[in-house]
Amino acid sequence: MNDEILKSYRESIDNIDAALVFMLAERFKITKAVGLHKATSGLPAADPNRESAQIERLRSLAKSANLDPDFSEKFLRFIIDEVIRHHEKAKSGD
Amino acid sequence: MNDEILKSYRESIDNIDAALVFMLAERFKITKAVGLHKATSGLPAADPNRESAQIERLRSLAKSANLDPDFSEKFLRFIIDEVIRHHEKAKSGD
Repeated sequence: MNDEILKSYRESIDNIDAALVFMLAERFKITKAVGLHKATSGLPAADPNRESAQIERLRSLAKSANLDPDFSEKFLRFIIDEVIRHHEKAKSGD
Repeated sequence: MNDEILKSYRESIDNIDAALVFMLAERFKITKAVGLHKATSGLPAADPNRESAQIERLRSLAKSANLDPDFSEKFLRFIIDEVIRHHEKAKSGD
């Protein structure tokens, strides 16, 4: 497709995707540190209050950004599932 | 949990999550514009070559960020599924 408008849109999407990937990498670095910190400090791995606060906050931010709040919640769960996978992998590596 | 280290990690996670939400909102603004542009220009909605190029690029970026490339691909599919949902919603609203 030789379309200058489409090309420009795709460049923006590619820039945003790169930013998302690097930001996700940074987020997982922190959640790995959290997992380690909780394990060494004897803190429980799960914290349901924290999770519901995160969901409420993200839904509210999504609304202000004109993003579907349900999607923002689904997105957070998608990320948290990966965090859990990392923690389980880390445990089995012990 | 009254733990300064954990509190600091969580602040960083919250900052990153806000950035992710606003960046996703911007990404969906662009994909909505792409959908409209394709519809008015008579371009096909799907472009398998573009999609595989996006996946390859993201996997390569993920590797350089020390992020699981499989996760980056799963992430892109998660986002693209939502884009498809938006396009279908837009069509049914015609």
